[in-house]
Amino acid sequence: MISLPYLLRSENIVRIEGKHLLIGDRRVYPFEKRFERCSSVPEIASALKRMVTQGGGPLDVALTAMEFVSKQMKEGIIQENFAELERSAALLIASRPTNTTMKRSLLALLEELRGDPDFVAQVEPLVEAKKAVFDQLYHQLGKEGSALIPDKAGVLTTCFAEHTFLLSLAYAKEDGKDITVFVPETRPYLQGSRLTAPSLEEMGIDVRVITDGMGATFLSTGDANIYMTAADLVCMDGTVVNKVGTLGNAIAAHRYMVPYYAFSVSPDPTKLDARDIQMEWRDAEEVTQCMGNPTSSNGMQALYPAFDIIPPDLVTGVVTGKGVLKPEEIKRNFQ
Amino acid sequence: MISLPYLLRSENIVRIEGKHLLIGDRRVYPFEKRFERCSSVPEIASALKRMVTQGGGPLDVALTAMEFVSKQMKEGIIQENFAELERSAALLIASRPTNTTMKRSLLALLEELRGDPDFVAQVEPLVEAKKAVFDQLYHQLGKEGSALIPDKAGVLTTCFAEHTFLLSLAYAKEDGKDITVFVPETRPYLQGSRLTAPSLEEMGIDVRVITDGMGATFLSTGDANIYMTAADLVCMDGTVVNKVGTLGNAIAAHRYMVPYYAFSVSPDPTKLDARDIQMEWRDAEEVTQCMGNPTSSNGMQALYPAFDIIPPDLVTGVVTGKGVLKPEEIKRNFQ
Repeated sequence: MISLPYLLRSENIVRIEGKHLLIGDRRVYPFEKRFERCSSVPEIASALKRMVTQGGGPLDVALTAMEFVSKQMKEGIIQENFAELERSAALLIASRPTNTTMKRSLLALLEELRGDPDFVAQVEPLVEAKKAVFDQLYHQLGKEGSALIPDKAGVLTTCFAEHTFLLSLAYAKEDGKDITVFVPETRPYLQGSRLTAPSLEEMGIDVRVITDGMGATFLSTGDANIYMTAADLVCMDGTVVNKVGTLGNAIAAHRYMVPYYAFSVSPDPTKLDARDIQMEWRDAEEVTQCMGNPTSSNGMQALYPAFDIIPPDLVTGVVTGKGVLKPEEIKRNFQ
Repeated sequence: MISLPYLLRSENIVRIEGKHLLIGDRRVYPFEKRFERCSSVPEIASALKRMVTQGGGPLDVALTAMEFVSKQMKEGIIQENFAELERSAALLIASRPTNTTMKRSLLALLEELRGDPDFVAQVEPLVEAKKAVFDQLYHQLGKEGSALIPDKAGVLTTCFAEHTFLLSLAYAKEDGKDITVFVPETRPYLQGSRLTAPSLEEMGIDVRVITDGMGATFLSTGDANIYMTAADLVCMDGTVVNKVGTLGNAIAAHRYMVPYYAFSVSPDPTKLDARDIQMEWRDAEEVTQCMGNPTSSNGMQALYPAFDIIPPDLVTGVVTGKGVLKPEEIKRNFQ
């Protein structure tokens, strides 16, 4: 039986407790197990913008936020008004523009509810059904991913690739494979060293933290023989968008003929190629500090594009609910 | 007139003051302008091992340490004994095994002094002559490097490439070129954000700090159109050894047809190719902290190879005292 590490257990990602929605604060893990308490959708959207959670977290939070709004409507805290639900969704969608899974899930939910006089009662069962679909997908992709991992594996990753990636490793471990995961720390937020590495350790998987400049190093020596990341977005031509730092490792993997796989529960049929991507630039000041401590002289200029765009020729395969697809197979399977 | 930034002014790298040798502590700059006070060669070697200074610093420190030892001999603090001078050199050489410029300079110095009954008096003038040669080389390489920088330049670098690189930018700026330098922070020690970026700012050159995963990102967009680094070692076949993180950027530069130049005052005729390199692995605990603060859970495993080996096919040219050479031209010029 696969057991999820602390960070991926549903109650630690997001939960409703009384009058509050609680978001597991990934900015302070593993040093603190803190939750951000939100009492309204603007507070939830602000938490997403401030990266309290990231990766697949915002999708979970946004769906739960819809339940939270319906609960507030039932309790008379806010008006039972479909337009209010739509405004809430718009606020959440705007908080993180690049990953469109949340956007598409919320818009689909609104369409299912639209025109239903009893929409308030329907939010919770519809959201729970959507969550169950994602949960089933996570395990399916985990099994697909595990089949790609060789018997003696040095797995390079980037950032915190969450359920699909960690489940792949869990299933591969269950199959008796010998695995070491090379985890770039993933500055500026250190999702690699703070989230991925402790989660792998908790799962009993051998892990080595490296700096973000070392991916190519361990690919060049052959220590890393497979590269796997999440994907914040997959376009119809197989272009992958993921945390900045992913591109450099994908280019190095290509040079050393190491396969690169990205996990995606939902390639985006509205994004044909890289030209359709809305790139999120984050506050550059995040780059000139580390956990609140300045890393350069005062007022130093910096740049922080949140994501990399990885062109299809660098992508060996995308692990999806329709199997492991080559970039050129995405369109006919998802559009 | 070119003026050097604080970190590269000779008195801030290393100087003898009374009974002490003072090493400018690059681990705490720009937050503190601290000097490590050493009263013996074992203390100096320990300071080098602990990365109080780095890059070209150890060469300067080691040469000055020889002057320091000769001063101690003159003052009767230690015995006037050539074997003692040799032991001192051996201690210094062992402190940083990968960069062999220091080793070769110290061994050459010993050969010049060997058998001279008056060797103690000769150390200082010989060392000063060697330093003058390096200083002249720095400016020559700076001029060669500046000629490689385009009129509208986005210069990517890695780590702190010191005199040769900063002088290239200074001369290019003097020529009226429009330059932005993209500086990866260079974890774990942050030489990029702490040393390179403040030095460039001090020189009035436009700088943007980025994380170590962003080099490929800015190469892919065309924002960076030239990649320049120091070289801790250049082999006779044109293999370059430099701070870990250099390889990934060199591979990405190659993909986007951006030229990669490494500066070397002294390619090593004793190193034919990558097989002759002695790789320095540093304490992995350095990777799981940032400026003393833990970046992962307690006891997390990590890896820290100090350097990357960049194969000749990724090197456009090596900027040397004999001109900008293609990798295949190194051997006939330096062996």
